[in-house]
Amino acid sequence: MCNAIRRMVTLASIREAMVRIRESIVVTPFLHSEKFSRLTGNTIFLKLENHQITGSFKERGALNKILGLTEDERRRGVISASAGNHAQAVAYHSTKRGIKSQICMPVMTPLVKVTATRDYGAEVVLIGANYEEACEDALRRCKEQSLTFIHPFDDDAIIDGQGTLGIEMLEQHDDLDVVLIPVGGGGLIGGVSSAVKEMNPKIQVIGVQSSKIASMKAALERNQPVTLPPSKTIAEGIAVRTAGTHTFPLVRKYVDEVVTVDEEEIASAIFLLLEKEKTLVEGAGAVTMAAVLNNKIPHRGKKIGILVSAGNIDVSLLSLIIKRGLVKDGRLVRLRIHLPDHPGALEKLAAVIAKQKANIVETLHDRTYYGVVLGDSVIDITMETRGTGHILELTTALEGAGYAFERVL
Amino acid sequence: MCNAIRRMVTLASIREAMVRIRESIVVTPFLHSEKFSRLTGNTIFLKLENHQITGSFKERGALNKILGLTEDERRRGVISASAGNHAQAVAYHSTKRGIKSQICMPVMTPLVKVTATRDYGAEVVLIGANYEEACEDALRRCKEQSLTFIHPFDDDAIIDGQGTLGIEMLEQHDDLDVVLIPVGGGGLIGGVSSAVKEMNPKIQVIGVQSSKIASMKAALERNQPVTLPPSKTIAEGIAVRTAGTHTFPLVRKYVDEVVTVDEEEIASAIFLLLEKEKTLVEGAGAVTMAAVLNNKIPHRGKKIGILVSAGNIDVSLLSLIIKRGLVKDGRLVRLRIHLPDHPGALEKLAAVIAKQKANIVETLHDRTYYGVVLGDSVIDITMETRGTGHILELTTALEGAGYAFERVL
Repeated sequence: MCNAIRRMVTLASIREAMVRIRESIVVTPFLHSEKFSRLTGNTIFLKLENHQITGSFKERGALNKILGLTEDERRRGVISASAGNHAQAVAYHSTKRGIKSQICMPVMTPLVKVTATRDYGAEVVLIGANYEEACEDALRRCKEQSLTFIHPFDDDAIIDGQGTLGIEMLEQHDDLDVVLIPVGGGGLIGGVSSAVKEMNPKIQVIGVQSSKIASMKAALERNQPVTLPPSKTIAEGIAVRTAGTHTFPLVRKYVDEVVTVDEEEIASAIFLLLEKEKTLVEGAGAVTMAAVLNNKIPHRGKKIGILVSAGNIDVSLLSLIIKRGLVKDGRLVRLRIHLPDHPGALEKLAAVIAKQKANIVETLHDRTYYGVVLGDSVIDITMETRGTGHILELTTALEGAGYAFERVL
Repeated sequence: MCNAIRRMVTLASIREAMVRIRESIVVTPFLHSEKFSRLTGNTIFLKLENHQITGSFKERGALNKILGLTEDERRRGVISASAGNHAQAVAYHSTKRGIKSQICMPVMTPLVKVTATRDYGAEVVLIGANYEEACEDALRRCKEQSLTFIHPFDDDAIIDGQGTLGIEMLEQHDDLDVVLIPVGGGGLIGGVSSAVKEMNPKIQVIGVQSSKIASMKAALERNQPVTLPPSKTIAEGIAVRTAGTHTFPLVRKYVDEVVTVDEEEIASAIFLLLEKEKTLVEGAGAVTMAAVLNNKIPHRGKKIGILVSAGNIDVSLLSLIIKRGLVKDGRLVRLRIHLPDHPGALEKLAAVIAKQKANIVETLHDRTYYGVVLGDSVIDITMETRGTGHILELTTALEGAGYAFERVL
């Protein structure tokens, strides 16, 4: 079956999915966050789907679809197109049940994702310049080889599976006022909003997208799915250019509002979730926290459930986000300081810095560029500091000692 | 009261502590780890105490002690000496109950810890060159000002509080074969082992220390606490030079074995817990996972509960650990490559690297050092790679193209 299942997503169908998948899915923690509650003036609970086995909620939908296959369909195998969490979810749960899986990925997919998907037992086909081309190829193979296509979102079996998260969240905390859900193609929020609103229509359901590619918001404005131009975002897990035709009507019916967050806000939420809540979240999983932290919703004093949907972030990217987070907090600063080019000059400078208790972590010395006067040199010094107040003390001390410098950003 | 409470730690006293503190302590997740189970051939469960409000288990003991104070003691306030998690735990739970707290810290304590403790409402006194001196001062102040001293581990009220973790772990999974507990002064393992062994003597309790400062292991060997020389470890939360006099007899009675792990093993466990399990753990909290990953215990096919005790790691240190983890995995490599010093030389080299699909992230060009022949230059190129196999492909291609190079470690 290369066409998606289309019937109706109802609370009943989501409950059936729940019964089907429950045994193989982690009931992830839904923890109170004292720090974020204080920071935002609400009572914040974090639903940590990054603790799902393959690191994202995607298993719920993929598994529900897989468990609905006939004996014959299982024997023939499944196919999908995805470079991300859906690929790993399909691969893992197919392999676990002895079902062959093929995943078509664009040729430029980062190799860490290819490897992860292969490690879960899928045959990875690298094909096409982008997701759309990989998907076309997957559909062609699906027909040629009589496989079952597992769409990442626009299939009611997938939507039912993702919807189980709505039931689970209300089972864990039944008195929520608001839930925040990341939105890409709409499979997750389509399912979760159906479950939540049918169980308790008083709960507000708010979707969050990256402002770089807010296709569901655009669909709501035009009252139909529209295709946005491609765009790069660190929330690549929800970078979907066109809302689903199955998911859009559910979102229109059940979701109260879709808001957007920008790249800086997402990066900052990743950093804060790591440092304050000790949990590793990818861009797509951090948009919900970013929305609350940046006042994209007006609520105060409410009990808010925040879906942290996935944690598969590249750790090299994480390392960059940490550095930028420290710079933003004033806990890491780089100054370009002019100093005379003779023995002892660095010692004198280092003494001033040491007195202010800033910790030097990197230096770069130059005598040629940055408009240096001949006979002088310039040094870029990166230091660990205690915050913006400490940086001010440091720069005041440097001025007092007669140094010319500027802050490097 | 500047003397520690000394009566008996029993399952009954730990149960009393449980009743006392339960309402104010997070019941932290105790999650199955499929990845670590597969990696180690056991069934691994991670008890994530890094999700405690101040990021560590220390709240359990501190809170139990605080809740045991008389009206008069509360009014006079508490004092402690600590540069770490115990300080934050005491500060947070004192302030929350309107009790004044003073924390003595060595003058060279990293300012991020000072700030965190102050933010929780404590008065921080920076005094003494090391922990021992800060502690002496705290005891002096304790007597002068008639305060209550809250010892980080060697007090039976503290041990009872930490012991609640043992009850909680067995409430969550009652069929464990083994539990692994980090060991510093012994407060945590003293309490947990008492609870676990009294509830089910068949469960093995294994302690883990940093090999840099294995004072409990030394105490067991000599049959009494001994003082080890100071030593630096990334597991600074368990860098205790002398086992406690209250805790040691409990460890001797209840703990089956104490094993040690080295710095590389700890760093690697921090990296794996972050990348595979999406959870941020500090050195002291990662020693248990490090012990299992490095075969410090002989178990196979067992159900093992791993206490991940704390997550308050400096994120700058984390950033370093990530980089080293990537290097160790062959996912980041630096090569020092000799190349002729003329236009186009870098282009040719970059083409060879691009063909192998390694991603260049940093370059450093030099014509003076590293024994460069005049007329040649040397370039350090740092690249993202896919693992050791990929590095071999890359270096083979460079050799094939006639480049002289070495790997920089």
